[in-house]
Amino acid sequence: MGGDYAPKATVLGAIAAYKVLTADQKLVLIGDKDQAVSILQENNFSPDHFDFVHTTEVIGMGEHPTKAIVQKTDSSISVGFKLLKEGAIDAFSSAGNSGAMLVGAMFSVKSIPGILRPAIASFVPKLEGGLGILIDVGANADCKPEYLLQFGVLGSLFVQHVYGLANPRVALINIGEEEEKGNLLSIAAWQLMKESKLINFTGNVEGRDLFGDHADVFVCDGFTGNVILKLAESFYVVTLKRKLKDEFFDRFNYEQYGGSPILGINAPVVVGHGISNPEAIKNMVLLSKNMIESGLTDKIKLAFQ
Amino acid sequence: MGGDYAPKATVLGAIAAYKVLTADQKLVLIGDKDQAVSILQENNFSPDHFDFVHTTEVIGMGEHPTKAIVQKTDSSISVGFKLLKEGAIDAFSSAGNSGAMLVGAMFSVKSIPGILRPAIASFVPKLEGGLGILIDVGANADCKPEYLLQFGVLGSLFVQHVYGLANPRVALINIGEEEEKGNLLSIAAWQLMKESKLINFTGNVEGRDLFGDHADVFVCDGFTGNVILKLAESFYVVTLKRKLKDEFFDRFNYEQYGGSPILGINAPVVVGHGISNPEAIKNMVLLSKNMIESGLTDKIKLAFQ
Repeated sequence: MGGDYAPKATVLGAIAAYKVLTADQKLVLIGDKDQAVSILQENNFSPDHFDFVHTTEVIGMGEHPTKAIVQKTDSSISVGFKLLKEGAIDAFSSAGNSGAMLVGAMFSVKSIPGILRPAIASFVPKLEGGLGILIDVGANADCKPEYLLQFGVLGSLFVQHVYGLANPRVALINIGEEEEKGNLLSIAAWQLMKESKLINFTGNVEGRDLFGDHADVFVCDGFTGNVILKLAESFYVVTLKRKLKDEFFDRFNYEQYGGSPILGINAPVVVGHGISNPEAIKNMVLLSKNMIESGLTDKIKLAFQ
Repeated sequence: MGGDYAPKATVLGAIAAYKVLTADQKLVLIGDKDQAVSILQENNFSPDHFDFVHTTEVIGMGEHPTKAIVQKTDSSISVGFKLLKEGAIDAFSSAGNSGAMLVGAMFSVKSIPGILRPAIASFVPKLEGGLGILIDVGANADCKPEYLLQFGVLGSLFVQHVYGLANPRVALINIGEEEEKGNLLSIAAWQLMKESKLINFTGNVEGRDLFGDHADVFVCDGFTGNVILKLAESFYVVTLKRKLKDEFFDRFNYEQYGGSPILGINAPVVVGHGISNPEAIKNMVLLSKNMIESGLTDKIKLAFQ
């Protein structure tokens, strides 16, 4: 049921995802079953291809995350996390209330032992082709240097195992390239990251370097990351509105990536964009599938043992 | 002498600025006089139109600001601030080492009494036309809530007096619109700004709202502001490289604005972009002229009495 255009966009996205799944992979639709089945029938698609878990409540996009999760126990987000915690499903994704997704993840599957703060990663296209990831984009508005180091490790493991990129380069978003530049947080984080053997740290980068090929993982606190992400999205929206066609800006389209993974928790969880269309929903599901197949959660557990 | 293309770009910019100045306004060129005079002669422009202060040293773009200011007392930046402090000139601007400009300003003309931290403002074009300003863009990487309130007041006075905009709207850059959203700094700053009678505070805005008509002054700490500024510049550079012509993106061209004013110090100072061309230099000079004519420094002194 999650997302501004649910359940139609989600069900159509599920149909699109189904076509890519293998025979032993099952998509479970959580939400209003009657509505979902009727959308499937309208599209001449057999409901038998999916499992269904019927829910009766809906968490609105503007609702307070913690209150909503606690009170609406029969919402698709609450039920999804319950199933994930019980192991009835292997990954959970939703384009619903992002805050509720984060709170739900923390309350149910919880942080991996050793992880100080789970974080949300987002994709950034590189000018030269390919993708980098930006972490954290909003889970942690206030950070300690230790968190930033861990974000680097989490992001590194993600691109390594989910995208098969060996020895990913990790950079710290800062306001100067030299080690003494920055705020107290970034100066201290630089030291920790420099000394860490868990990441291939390449140093500081500035706001202008985000789309360059300076790194594969860009680390920052969740406040800075959220501002960056939304600013970048707004540029993309401007290019769309003004009909500026360009291959690079096309790659800002969130639909291709499907959503933002929450990293550092005990199961794969992907948070979709509220405005997700069927293509975005399909890719959100496929990203969570890739996270299962890569064994990312176990890889992270191992690294933080 | 300041800037990557000095002294040629600066002297040509000075010629362009001269044509806009009134008879009682005098432009003082600080730097290598022989070089300047020879560039003027090459351009058939009489050196008599300017005053000259000859200097023998040059602060490089990569030099450590404080060391450079202390050691190179006969650099154009050091001499400029000396003249400004003595009242021999009314405003000082340079496209040289930005850090040295900031340090020089703090060491010479110093903060206005009551100002906790001077800040650097930068211009952001609005999609609907017109300009907003972003403050701070890098003078203060670590901020307290009280600084952010003052940035709002400084920015407000700037657009009010230099651009003649009555009752400018001041917004706080944040990661959500609601008052409880943000990091510890922005949550505390929101309260101070809400209660202040010195600004017309319109609340939180997100990264995506920077180019909208939500506010005239966008306030943030210098770390966030610097990342925003450099990210925005990189988008502009991408549109240039990819030959995406658009009126909105054209207005990102820093040349039109000339530079970034340092606000909260005892005299008008404008820091130009290192890559300033003659057009940018001209506008940097004219911005500092506008700051003199508006009596901005006295207006700020009065507000903080």
